[in-house]
Amino acid sequence: MSRFWSDTARRLTPYVPGEQPKLDKLVKLNTNESPYGPSPRAVEAIQRAASEDLRRYPDPNSDALKAALARYHSVRPAQIFVGNGSDEVLAHAFIALLKHDAPLRFPDITYSFYPVYCGLFDITHTPIALTDALEIDPADYAAGGPIIFPNPNAPTGRLLPIDAVEALLAANPDVPVVIDEAYIDYGGESAIPLVDRHPNLLVTRTFSKSRALAGLRVGYAVGSAELVEGLERVKNSFNSYPLGRPAQAGAIASVEDEPHFRDSCARVIATREWLDQALTALGFEVLPSAANFVFARHPKHAGATLAAALRDQAIIVRHFKLPRIDDYLRITVGTDDECAALIDALKALV
Amino acid sequence: MSRFWSDTARRLTPYVPGEQPKLDKLVKLNTNESPYGPSPRAVEAIQRAASEDLRRYPDPNSDALKAALARYHSVRPAQIFVGNGSDEVLAHAFIALLKHDAPLRFPDITYSFYPVYCGLFDITHTPIALTDALEIDPADYAAGGPIIFPNPNAPTGRLLPIDAVEALLAANPDVPVVIDEAYIDYGGESAIPLVDRHPNLLVTRTFSKSRALAGLRVGYAVGSAELVEGLERVKNSFNSYPLGRPAQAGAIASVEDEPHFRDSCARVIATREWLDQALTALGFEVLPSAANFVFARHPKHAGATLAAALRDQAIIVRHFKLPRIDDYLRITVGTDDECAALIDALKALV
Repeated sequence: MSRFWSDTARRLTPYVPGEQPKLDKLVKLNTNESPYGPSPRAVEAIQRAASEDLRRYPDPNSDALKAALARYHSVRPAQIFVGNGSDEVLAHAFIALLKHDAPLRFPDITYSFYPVYCGLFDITHTPIALTDALEIDPADYAAGGPIIFPNPNAPTGRLLPIDAVEALLAANPDVPVVIDEAYIDYGGESAIPLVDRHPNLLVTRTFSKSRALAGLRVGYAVGSAELVEGLERVKNSFNSYPLGRPAQAGAIASVEDEPHFRDSCARVIATREWLDQALTALGFEVLPSAANFVFARHPKHAGATLAAALRDQAIIVRHFKLPRIDDYLRITVGTDDECAALIDALKALV
Repeated sequence: MSRFWSDTARRLTPYVPGEQPKLDKLVKLNTNESPYGPSPRAVEAIQRAASEDLRRYPDPNSDALKAALARYHSVRPAQIFVGNGSDEVLAHAFIALLKHDAPLRFPDITYSFYPVYCGLFDITHTPIALTDALEIDPADYAAGGPIIFPNPNAPTGRLLPIDAVEALLAANPDVPVVIDEAYIDYGGESAIPLVDRHPNLLVTRTFSKSRALAGLRVGYAVGSAELVEGLERVKNSFNSYPLGRPAQAGAIASVEDEPHFRDSCARVIATREWLDQALTALGFEVLPSAANFVFARHPKHAGATLAAALRDQAIIVRHFKLPRIDDYLRITVGTDDECAALIDALKALV
């Protein structure tokens, strides 16, 4: 604490991201990165952007990137908002759309950055408990304040089917609803086609998972033009130029390389199914996952103990010391070899 | 306005950055970019980063970049904060350090983003008038709330000499003082050596001007470890990964290429002196500039009229429709050829 800090700075409990160890030779299955690289076209575009006009400010509005994303999702460019990773997009959504008198609602088990944003922007919030099966039940989201949830949820990986998403939206036409689709590309059905019928719906996306560009920092949101305008007002009061030239160029090239994208996602999904079966065969209970990770617990071994034992073998998975999920491990779907190494290590442990 | 916007989003008056026209063949002297490119080593480092591990999250703490900057400025890494352009660094400083009960003080004529941040974070503020010569007078900053000002000031280009900076600090030991040194490398003396004696002093810097990396988006701040910790708390409650891998790599390489940096700054300073004299010869009153731009007015021609007439000839300068400086043009120091083209155009106009 310092007397020079604001009250806001004093009261914060910052987010703690998954560890980014600086050691080599790790099997790193803790931060849900893609095991495959980004589109080679994205790499080339970044390299080209680096050699052209880096002394110039980038387009503050990222118009070319918005146009590419609008084409991709069949919406208008005014329905696209872009930011420095989906964490920044979410931060702007919290201050622009989710801060109202009625408390913000989100699942009790979810992306742990949400309560942190609430602390930063002084937003009251109410947790809504997942069911015993760690699922979101739309019936629990009847009347109330704004809503945010990831779909698939993190860290459970469980998908809310699109008809359930529609039921939740139908029950909440008068408050902003943000759906964080960081992991939707691994088998879920997106809510983006619903934005035109639901002016209160904002869907956020990231280039960090299925597009394998976590190192570049690009995220975006799709919604009604009026929601996007609210986000733009906040963005233009915070940082005019959130995306540099390499980031804009790389993201555009990624969006335009559909075969690479589809192939990467398909490979991750195939490995996920193998991993699910292999863990089940070892006695783990594995939640059905529609993400690039699985969430699993062993009836006889504590999550923290297993995570520590794996770490001793240079395999890093994520464990959350939180009520209800303390037993679980969240395991990123890596390459086939990485997942096999994990299963081998677990065989010796359980 | 939308009923889904928060009160914050409703009450904002966003910042309007200098135009980034998408036309070619312009003489673009409106956003204070470097006329010379960045260090070739920075370009190579970005290209290398693009081909390595872009699927991985970057180091959330940018430790290698902080170490490079700490070496450069002879401070400890814990005294360095980095962000997505100095606008993001400033935004975090506003919420972490400049939001207190006593109103924030800054010059009436200054970087026009400051009141915008105040709107976003609900910070009360009081303008302190520049002198008639458009200078900051430390005597006007006796007792009061936190302080922020650019040095050299924008858009005037006027430098507050280091002894005057020390006088201002001596009079304000109990409130945070942020000095925005975006333009310090063009002839000013930095306040960074003062941070160890003044735990309330934060100095912000950018890679967008003297390091010619506006397209990359990197800024930083240097201060006491306790001020930096306050900024880190806000950063880690907003976005864990503000700088991508290409940005971190490019910035490090730039800091390590001192000859390129010194040479670029020296060329800009030489051209600025030529431009100052050429404008003076045309009858302009030119404020003494320690920045990479000059601020000038002509006694017989309105600033807006001149800016529009230059624009018709594809030469863009910046004009601010604001009290006290409505007569002035802010002209970025371009290449010698660009400045000669500007002077030729003005000769025909005045």
